[in-house]
Amino acid sequence: MDHPTIARRALLAAPLLAAPLAAPALLAPRPARAQAPAGQPLVVRKQVFEAGEYRTRGGGVVPNARIGYQTAGTLNAAGDNAVLITHFFSANSHAFGRLSPNGPAGYWDNIVGPGKAIDTDRFFVVSSDTLVNLNLNDATTTSTGPATIDPSTGRPFGMTFPVVSMRDFIEVQKRLLDSLGVKRLALVAGPSMGALQAIEWACAYPDMIDRVMPSVVTGEFDAFLLGWMEIWEVPIRMDPNWRNGDYYGAGREPPLRGLAEALKIVTLQARDRGSLAQFGRRAPEGQDPARRIGDSFAVERFLDEAAAARAKTADANAFIYLTRANQLFLNEYPDSAAALARSKASWLVLPAPGDHIFPIAYGRDLGETLRKAGRPVTVFELEGGLGHLEGVASMNKAEGAIRTFLGTGA
Amino acid sequence: MDHPTIARRALLAAPLLAAPLAAPALLAPRPARAQAPAGQPLVVRKQVFEAGEYRTRGGGVVPNARIGYQTAGTLNAAGDNAVLITHFFSANSHAFGRLSPNGPAGYWDNIVGPGKAIDTDRFFVVSSDTLVNLNLNDATTTSTGPATIDPSTGRPFGMTFPVVSMRDFIEVQKRLLDSLGVKRLALVAGPSMGALQAIEWACAYPDMIDRVMPSVVTGEFDAFLLGWMEIWEVPIRMDPNWRNGDYYGAGREPPLRGLAEALKIVTLQARDRGSLAQFGRRAPEGQDPARRIGDSFAVERFLDEAAAARAKTADANAFIYLTRANQLFLNEYPDSAAALARSKASWLVLPAPGDHIFPIAYGRDLGETLRKAGRPVTVFELEGGLGHLEGVASMNKAEGAIRTFLGTGA
Repeated sequence: MDHPTIARRALLAAPLLAAPLAAPALLAPRPARAQAPAGQPLVVRKQVFEAGEYRTRGGGVVPNARIGYQTAGTLNAAGDNAVLITHFFSANSHAFGRLSPNGPAGYWDNIVGPGKAIDTDRFFVVSSDTLVNLNLNDATTTSTGPATIDPSTGRPFGMTFPVVSMRDFIEVQKRLLDSLGVKRLALVAGPSMGALQAIEWACAYPDMIDRVMPSVVTGEFDAFLLGWMEIWEVPIRMDPNWRNGDYYGAGREPPLRGLAEALKIVTLQARDRGSLAQFGRRAPEGQDPARRIGDSFAVERFLDEAAAARAKTADANAFIYLTRANQLFLNEYPDSAAALARSKASWLVLPAPGDHIFPIAYGRDLGETLRKAGRPVTVFELEGGLGHLEGVASMNKAEGAIRTFLGTGA
Repeated sequence: MDHPTIARRALLAAPLLAAPLAAPALLAPRPARAQAPAGQPLVVRKQVFEAGEYRTRGGGVVPNARIGYQTAGTLNAAGDNAVLITHFFSANSHAFGRLSPNGPAGYWDNIVGPGKAIDTDRFFVVSSDTLVNLNLNDATTTSTGPATIDPSTGRPFGMTFPVVSMRDFIEVQKRLLDSLGVKRLALVAGPSMGALQAIEWACAYPDMIDRVMPSVVTGEFDAFLLGWMEIWEVPIRMDPNWRNGDYYGAGREPPLRGLAEALKIVTLQARDRGSLAQFGRRAPEGQDPARRIGDSFAVERFLDEAAAARAKTADANAFIYLTRANQLFLNEYPDSAAALARSKASWLVLPAPGDHIFPIAYGRDLGETLRKAGRPVTVFELEGGLGHLEGVASMNKAEGAIRTFLGTGA
């Protein structure tokens, strides 16, 4: 493959962070308050929060819940200048800054940092890993999930790990914010599954949230979206190595093929035609799909390679627990409108017209539901060929709207 | 499941025709000219066309190509009042009428028949099975494909069947029309893969086509769409029973699970949220997805059941050959615009805003490309909650536009 631009985009969308940090640094107890000198990139430090025993909303118990996080900026004395950034399906807390001076930037680094739209000179910005994070084998991710050892058996939980919902994600984040002294969130924001977390926050803790900024988003998880989560899981369940989730440990092979095929669906659905146009209808050297049924087009090989690369650091069971957490978005309310009516925040909603994961009708409906509930809301559409990925990679398009929303001027 | 409306819709979308016809009737050489007495449903007869040896565009040979077809109406002396209806991915030639007086109606029966928008009292309407048709185990489908016996080995072709393209589909149909005495097509029309066939006809035989009416359509098969075809095939390739296509014959199990999972993707992607709204976020009796990771939502069970029912009469290898034929749409032209510039027809393009298989941008672009090529074109958008299926089940919405297009008044 000789498509450096596409390869860069794939990396942007799949934050399989390569630079490991030493364990002692990960476990350092005091929060880092990253500040970048003028002209220098913001360097952040990955840390670990021990949330203790956590009882899930579904009645299960996570004996020792742990999540990684990073911060930048300084919390003021009132504890009310905090911003929480919540991550998307295949990401972790690395939303902004660099984990080492020459390492890659976080996925929203174009809008979070010193002097940027979400200004770390003004806000104390926190970003955390979720529970059941996908990136099991990435050294910069810390997350309790199905691969964690169950202390009652000494073996990984596998599919005995309790079901967790979007609400569970934010309950653990709430403990993290409490531990950091955060009293109010000036903003909670995130793309895709991060947008679902931001909305879940606004409905669960309406008195604590000033502003909500979900991008590439739905305000409800209806039957159509529930069905897609089921489709995403199919290849994992079909992989004989999955063994109903019991694949950890010596002598066993994880279901890497099924996981890669599952990630291939996500990879394609997260894009729109513009982001793949450079492959055109070409076939790789030596391949002739018009003559040989086993041959394929260049885009197929790209999808295979991108997914296989992602699969190496991911965990198949975590994938399944994540799709369920998405399915359980706003699960504790009679419906989406009833949930959203609880919010007391101002909203900036950023759907993308080319989004095939959360088609734009869902984002527009969210804006309408908020308007009917009397909430101040601006809907700014992210035009462009990347589709769902617009909400991750192209947030600079919304920079003016974000500055206006945060009252920080242009 | 107690959702009769959804069940009916599923049947509409999956013409797994139940009423078998006796073989002698299928092989009767003379074309039937079905005419319905006033107030009676149109009854049509499935027939078989022997196309003989067929050399594919890719250089392969199909020793004895056969396809089923049905007709209604009477061809005039000039042979120029013919209409060809081309079928979608999971359908066969049963586009209109009933194969027995009490049998189900064809998928476009709401617009094809005596006095209907495509009036069989005026036009001689032909509809044929494609090569490599999906519905191997449906008695009313006749189609040469990977399950056909290779006369040189006495065993089914399997994956040694030659690659066929959308152009190959129409070349075999051309032989059928020649055998029936058709000189001109007043109209070629079809939904989805049928729309691709209609376009391929218009580009291959511009001097023979007066009008083209593709519904739920794209005018190009770009990298994004090529990639989706690859995704659709994944579950079949992952099924250990697939055995690289070598699963026919005694003592072997076909890859029914993989085929069902593949059809599940198609089933969901062919819909929009409106057509699944009645499932809401409900779980079936006894299922609690918020507490048990193995439990699921009602829509997931519906998708499983609908796909498993479809899989019983379908063939996994045919599915793979069909996705390739789609990928090879307009494959012999430099690009879509160059192909479409060959057309001399008038066009009625019917995209659907909720279409997730061919997102509406593709249909709108097709209209624009035709306009730029100087073709008379009307774009009529099929609004509604069914998504891609609007182009199959809701064509009555376009009845006025079709009558105007055909010059038959309202």
